[in-house]
Amino acid sequence: MSKKTVLLTGFEPFNKETINPAWEAVRALDGWSEEGFTVAARQLPCVFVLANEVMARAIEELNPSIVIAVGQAGGRCDLSVERVAINIDDAPILDNQQQQLVDQAVVEGGPAAYFSTLPVKAIARELRAAGLPASVSQTAGTFVCNHVFYGLMHVAAERMERGGVAPMRAGFIHIPYLPRQAAAHPGAPSMALADMVEGLRVAVRTALEVESDVRYAGGATH
Amino acid sequence: MSKKTVLLTGFEPFNKETINPAWEAVRALDGWSEEGFTVAARQLPCVFVLANEVMARAIEELNPSIVIAVGQAGGRCDLSVERVAINIDDAPILDNQQQQLVDQAVVEGGPAAYFSTLPVKAIARELRAAGLPASVSQTAGTFVCNHVFYGLMHVAAERMERGGVAPMRAGFIHIPYLPRQAAAHPGAPSMALADMVEGLRVAVRTALEVESDVRYAGGATH
Amino acid sequence: MSKKTVLLTGFEPFNKETINPAWEAVRALDGWSEEGFTVAARQLPCVFVLANEVMARAIEELNPSIVIAVGQAGGRCDLSVERVAINIDDAPILDNQQQQLVDQAVVEGGPAAYFSTLPVKAIARELRAAGLPASVSQTAGTFVCNHVFYGLMHVAAERMERGGVAPMRAGFIHIPYLPRQAAAHPGAPSMALADMVEGLRVAVRTALEVESDVRYAGGATH
Amino acid sequence: MSKKTVLLTGFEPFNKETINPAWEAVRALDGWSEEGFTVAARQLPCVFVLANEVMARAIEELNPSIVIAVGQAGGRCDLSVERVAINIDDAPILDNQQQQLVDQAVVEGGPAAYFSTLPVKAIARELRAAGLPASVSQTAGTFVCNHVFYGLMHVAAERMERGGVAPMRAGFIHIPYLPRQAAAHPGAPSMALADMVEGLRVAVRTALEVESDVRYAGGATH
Repeated sequence: MSKKTVLLTGFEPFNKETINPAWEAVRALDGWSEEGFTVAARQLPCVFVLANEVMARAIEELNPSIVIAVGQAGGRCDLSVERVAINIDDAPILDNQQQQLVDQAVVEGGPAAYFSTLPVKAIARELRAAGLPASVSQTAGTFVCNHVFYGLMHVAAERMERGGVAPMRAGFIHIPYLPRQAAAHPGAPSMALADMVEGLRVAVRTALEVESDVRYAGGATH
Repeated sequence: MSKKTVLLTGFEPFNKETINPAWEAVRALDGWSEEGFTVAARQLPCVFVLANEVMARAIEELNPSIVIAVGQAGGRCDLSVERVAINIDDAPILDNQQQQLVDQAVVEGGPAAYFSTLPVKAIARELRAAGLPASVSQTAGTFVCNHVFYGLMHVAAERMERGGVAPMRAGFIHIPYLPRQAAAHPGAPSMALADMVEGLRVAVRTALEVESDVRYAGGATH
Repeated sequence: MSKKTVLLTGFEPFNKETINPAWEAVRALDGWSEEGFTVAARQLPCVFVLANEVMARAIEELNPSIVIAVGQAGGRCDLSVERVAINIDDAPILDNQQQQLVDQAVVEGGPAAYFSTLPVKAIARELRAAGLPASVSQTAGTFVCNHVFYGLMHVAAERMERGGVAPMRAGFIHIPYLPRQAAAHPGAPSMALADMVEGLRVAVRTALEVESDVRYAGGATH
Repeated sequence: MSKKTVLLTGFEPFNKETINPAWEAVRALDGWSEEGFTVAARQLPCVFVLANEVMARAIEELNPSIVIAVGQAGGRCDLSVERVAINIDDAPILDNQQQQLVDQAVVEGGPAAYFSTLPVKAIARELRAAGLPASVSQTAGTFVCNHVFYGLMHVAAERMERGGVAPMRAGFIHIPYLPRQAAAHPGAPSMALADMVEGLRVAVRTALEVESDVRYAGGATH
């Protein structure tokens, strides 16, 4: 039996940063292979009109069983497993092609939102069990991260409708600044690259092993 | 021509509070009437299995043109105009009937999310123009507030499908603690009741007057 | 018997603001008079090299029993009764004469710090009892607010040493942005002017009435 | 010529934690030795009435040239080089002997505060240059950390007055939670132990090498 493929994506640097922890973390796992799976890492441009195309091509090429898109969330303190992608682009800053999409759909006519099909609660729990700060997040924002998350889930939904391909679980994880970035952002939390990489290992394993997500209170009052 | 009805709802106190700013603010506007509209205020129980029923009955009774549900967001600092309701209950705390729904749909089989049909950007802009701190929020959480917001939008969608009723715009606004509440929550921001009431006046007027929402960057990078 | 004089000071606007809540709040109390006391309000320039001179002249002129200097703390959520002034100027921004003092003493040769001689714990408690968010703060920063606080306490200490004058209690209270300011600072808490004014009334009364400060845990672990 | 001794202290776990990053970080450097210096690490009890005694004995025993006391600041995101210790104990929580000192002096009759004699600005700058988030902090709180910081500076001042001993530079650095601690404190930032240890190396070297502190704006408006 052939191995499963796990696709991890990370963005190029954006918003004046010279490094993106998401790309650093996923590329560290490129080629990671165990008995049942192999990981492939791909970089995504931080560009609204390109990112989802690059993602779609990677999915077509690799036919992955699991896709975890990873993005930098400067200001967050933990590994945030995103629960839901919403069908809106509303960019507070310019993307890397100097575009700023405002109040328009990610996919015209698409559903208002997609839920992650990763076991988000199980991943957050396993991350904490591994000694890593983690939570389930109720919003991935409205910038390129959410755009890619929504686009990814839309592709996954289309593949499922079309049939003829193996089912694909997909979702998004936000990660903090690296310490070297936070050194230039007073008051911003950070996380060591090694912990991010370890966290993604945990997420990949959990996504492969946990069929039905666990249930435990993990939401937000507001 | 008959006046339009604007329905404002606010919750009863919850989570050990003895007052709920949402109810205090909306009841201050009960009966507010101008040439084109009259406001009716209703209290909702902070109970998963009851709140949406009370809301649905109020809508049936009043046949409102606008519904704005208002809820307390302890810890937030401004009037948060919610953009999207998601189809998930995941309660970090008990509701007022000691129930804690975890990881289940608000409406089984319903869409993953509904967007507010209020002009959220226009409302946020007008609030700030009136000297009140305000923003568009990308998440209403996963507790009873989101539950009611989702339930409200679901009713609105069903009425539109069914036809035969006037169109209804609906949405949700989160408001901070009152100062007297914040006095017991070190580090929590607050807002004076008079400013909340004034803010809801602005929101009602804007919802009545602005047909198509304005567009300006107001989202979040994550 | 002559009435006691209470001197309240507030700064002019600084850091690109067009209004300063501290001045708005104290000037609302100018001339407030009860059986035992009268309040005089004075505006201070937000200028390192001038502010303490204006303060010293006001003290000489008015011979107050109580001095409460009030300053804007944009980003704080409550009425912060400052505990201690430190002998250092270290300005992260320019003052209103475009000066930026860095790492120099407020008073060359002065003690490292002065504690407030107001009953800070009693004031914080009375504020909360009045339904206003309040706390005792361990740092007044290192900008013009701390500079004035230190300068004020230094004058008070010198007067006590010199003798021949009535004892003078003095201290500093930081207050949040006004709502209209916070409307332009996303994420910043605010407080209504009426609540600030009411808070200062409580502080003045408590400073006049409470001889020995109350003791209760109100510090910070770090 | 004999080597200089650098004393690093860290606390035992407190406040229900089972680990203290400060002790973990300093003990990793115990015995670290270079051409001009050797590091000795000592653990301090998180007990008001014991900690300064243990510190004083260690200083007597080791006669260090540099003392850096290190403490956990759960909730802070960076390496905080403390600027000033104040003469007040005001404990929001119990210490490890179930004592809670409230509003009393650390040293009866001592000065209101002591400034760190470490080159705090240089240390913060070098830490950031090494890619580590760092800042100068204006308050070490009013719990055992500030108590030890004040006690340490008091001992240093007494030694200088007494004469006959080599001059001793001393100060305090607060550090964040470890990731494994933050995993149990939703919303709390953390830092990897390796980065804390590296940060303390930088601090030790800078304290040994930089005679007069550098000046650059690094304070706080409030």
